[in-house]
Amino acid sequence: VNLADIIATTRDRRALTSLQIQRLVTAATDGTAADYQLAAWLMAVVLNGLSDQETTALTLAMANSGERLDLAGLPKPWLDKHSTGGVGDKTTLVVLPILAACGMTIVKMSGRGLGITGGTIDKLESIPGFRTDLTPEEMKDQAERIGIALSGQTPRLAPADKALYALRDVTGTVQSIPLIVSSILSKKIAGGAEKVVFDVKCGSGAFMKSHDDARALANSLMTIGAEAGLQVACLITDMQQPLGRAVGNALEVQEAIDVLSGKERGRFRKLCEQLAGLALELGGKVEKGLGKQHAANCIDDGSALLKLDQWFQAQGVHVSVVDPQFSLPRAPAKQEVLATARGFVSAIDAEQIGSLVVELGGGRKTKGDAVDPAVGVVLHKEVGVLVEKGEPILTIHARKDEDLIPLTDQADRAIRISSNAPAVPDVIKEVFKSQPRD
Amino acid sequence: VNLADIIATTRDRRALTSLQIQRLVTAATDGTAADYQLAAWLMAVVLNGLSDQETTALTLAMANSGERLDLAGLPKPWLDKHSTGGVGDKTTLVVLPILAACGMTIVKMSGRGLGITGGTIDKLESIPGFRTDLTPEEMKDQAERIGIALSGQTPRLAPADKALYALRDVTGTVQSIPLIVSSILSKKIAGGAEKVVFDVKCGSGAFMKSHDDARALANSLMTIGAEAGLQVACLITDMQQPLGRAVGNALEVQEAIDVLSGKERGRFRKLCEQLAGLALELGGKVEKGLGKQHAANCIDDGSALLKLDQWFQAQGVHVSVVDPQFSLPRAPAKQEVLATARGFVSAIDAEQIGSLVVELGGGRKTKGDAVDPAVGVVLHKEVGVLVEKGEPILTIHARKDEDLIPLTDQADRAIRISSNAPAVPDVIKEVFKSQPRD
Repeated sequence: VNLADIIATTRDRRALTSLQIQRLVTAATDGTAADYQLAAWLMAVVLNGLSDQETTALTLAMANSGERLDLAGLPKPWLDKHSTGGVGDKTTLVVLPILAACGMTIVKMSGRGLGITGGTIDKLESIPGFRTDLTPEEMKDQAERIGIALSGQTPRLAPADKALYALRDVTGTVQSIPLIVSSILSKKIAGGAEKVVFDVKCGSGAFMKSHDDARALANSLMTIGAEAGLQVACLITDMQQPLGRAVGNALEVQEAIDVLSGKERGRFRKLCEQLAGLALELGGKVEKGLGKQHAANCIDDGSALLKLDQWFQAQGVHVSVVDPQFSLPRAPAKQEVLATARGFVSAIDAEQIGSLVVELGGGRKTKGDAVDPAVGVVLHKEVGVLVEKGEPILTIHARKDEDLIPLTDQADRAIRISSNAPAVPDVIKEVFKSQPRD
Repeated sequence: VNLADIIATTRDRRALTSLQIQRLVTAATDGTAADYQLAAWLMAVVLNGLSDQETTALTLAMANSGERLDLAGLPKPWLDKHSTGGVGDKTTLVVLPILAACGMTIVKMSGRGLGITGGTIDKLESIPGFRTDLTPEEMKDQAERIGIALSGQTPRLAPADKALYALRDVTGTVQSIPLIVSSILSKKIAGGAEKVVFDVKCGSGAFMKSHDDARALANSLMTIGAEAGLQVACLITDMQQPLGRAVGNALEVQEAIDVLSGKERGRFRKLCEQLAGLALELGGKVEKGLGKQHAANCIDDGSALLKLDQWFQAQGVHVSVVDPQFSLPRAPAKQEVLATARGFVSAIDAEQIGSLVVELGGGRKTKGDAVDPAVGVVLHKEVGVLVEKGEPILTIHARKDEDLIPLTDQADRAIRISSNAPAVPDVIKEVFKSQPRD
């Protein structure tokens, strides 16, 4: 493979052939490509972009760079769900049980958190006994039995993504829609999914800060996903305030259980119903327009909670989540943060709450940091409500009392109270449904 | 040094501080910077550029990355000359002796040829005995005795340039004005020059194909040169047809000797007079407007030829160039290429003649290739003249007869003959003189 030619082609805004892209990906995977040449190419992609055709070729080449999970024999539809990540985003823990309860097959790889963005694997590892290191064979077996399997990423699937991501992370080349889209989609394809629902987060606590950026990513996921042979649907959802009540690993698991138990009915449940509904419609399980209600029914009739229990137990948890013996790690120190005035809560900044949880030890500053499963923040109010002076807005859960003082100030700065009622954006900002295909 | 920050800053078109640039250059020189991070940064520079302030900081940091030659004690002005490279460009061999004959001190590092662009070191090495590996101490000693010293690049001066250039060469990041300008100027500064004349080549046989590109480079050399403390002047000169009669190492040395002997009076001598004149004016050796005539006088009175002889002998040549014993390598096989029709020579394409000489073995396809000193092309006609059908246009000098057949065809394709007299661009396309400084 002539990497010098490939670099010059992208640098000069000319188009690479699919064959060139395949060779590039092969060389990146087997280590024959020099890191410095890949890095130069990645920066050229960040600044000059890639066409949809090139991005599709990159996606497929990465998907084919290792093994591909073959779900043959498992009930269709084979579905996956992806979130671009945010603060308090425990959607996977609610949506997957709903979908599996409705007869879908979900084999999913998830990641760990980095910076303010949490990771599903970290959340699940806060549950005593939960195994996140399933082999591809174990994932398929488990999905055959109960409809869900979720594991950390294995180097056997889409190894090119692992190689390129490691390089992107240290060369300032993470922020590029073609690179993000090909990274996401290649793992979905390698994991065997045929249909994927995306949750593109938008706001201060998300990777995409503006609606325009989020829409560009959503459009690309839709276009390239379809070109690469997937059926896709997508939501753009609000991440200006944290999603739901809890931010922090074990606290979020408990919140997901509470949603599936019918105890929580706020914005977070609404997002889960909408996303699960979109997936049910995409999977042909319900008629168009009825997905959301069907998802809500699966919560209300307890079938989704039952599925969550099956899932957790299949992956090593010994106690049912409805058993009084079921327990999650708890942080010993707590501090409430109170409203400093009477008024409307006009902002609870997701980015600041996210970084507060990182400071508590609930997230990572750099890869390889340990994560404390117990710490975090629980919100008692959401944006838009009227509060009295002195009412608790949130509670910080910390490892020790000394952590609380500086972080209480930080929490204060994340909260804004105003005398006028603010405009509260709906949690669902935009819906993209795929066109029917012949 | 936080390379991730530096990469992101240039990627996002924000300005680096001089301190950041210094640290980057230090890390590139001492090897603590990862190649892949440098490569990503270099590509960001190619696509986003650097400001004049950043380019100046880069130039100075690279100039200071190793030793700096201190010419204290040698007669001023301390001058250097730089060409951006072309086909048949042996200007250094004529201009340096003129300037030294006029009392200037020239300590110069030159490079080897690559691709169609020849290199002064290759040309000089075609002379039996000529040494091109002077140490910085030998260069200074020799310049003190005779006014000229010329050597291949030493890693002791501007080692950052060597490190960055090696990476640029394999990452598609050669073509960038800030990187080109800082590379050129840093070596001049490290070599001790205070004044520099530039010859920016423009046309098919040059790096800069268009006048606009050449002008952008010339402007940047003038601006950054002045900011970095040099006094600079610059010509943009034509490289659409080869410069002078000869292309090929020994053949070009002979042509330079012929110019200094008064035997050659064409476009090439004109360029040398103009460039030497510009240097004489810049160096304060003659009044403005009289430089060119003064340079011509130095040729006509034999003083420049005498200086050439001194120079060659100081660097190891045992025979005077005017001695009948002086001999250069000669190629055994020759073939004339004739005019295919009566008419005006309307093009002799420099790029095609250059690649023909590479094919003959007179240039390098890749670094490290050996160069044949004897082979090349001698032009008998220049663009604009009227020729009869069957008149020789050029002669190919080859290693063996078998090389001649395919190359004769290639030479034919480089030549165009037309029935109308073509417009012949002057060899000097533009002159940039530095503003007087307080």
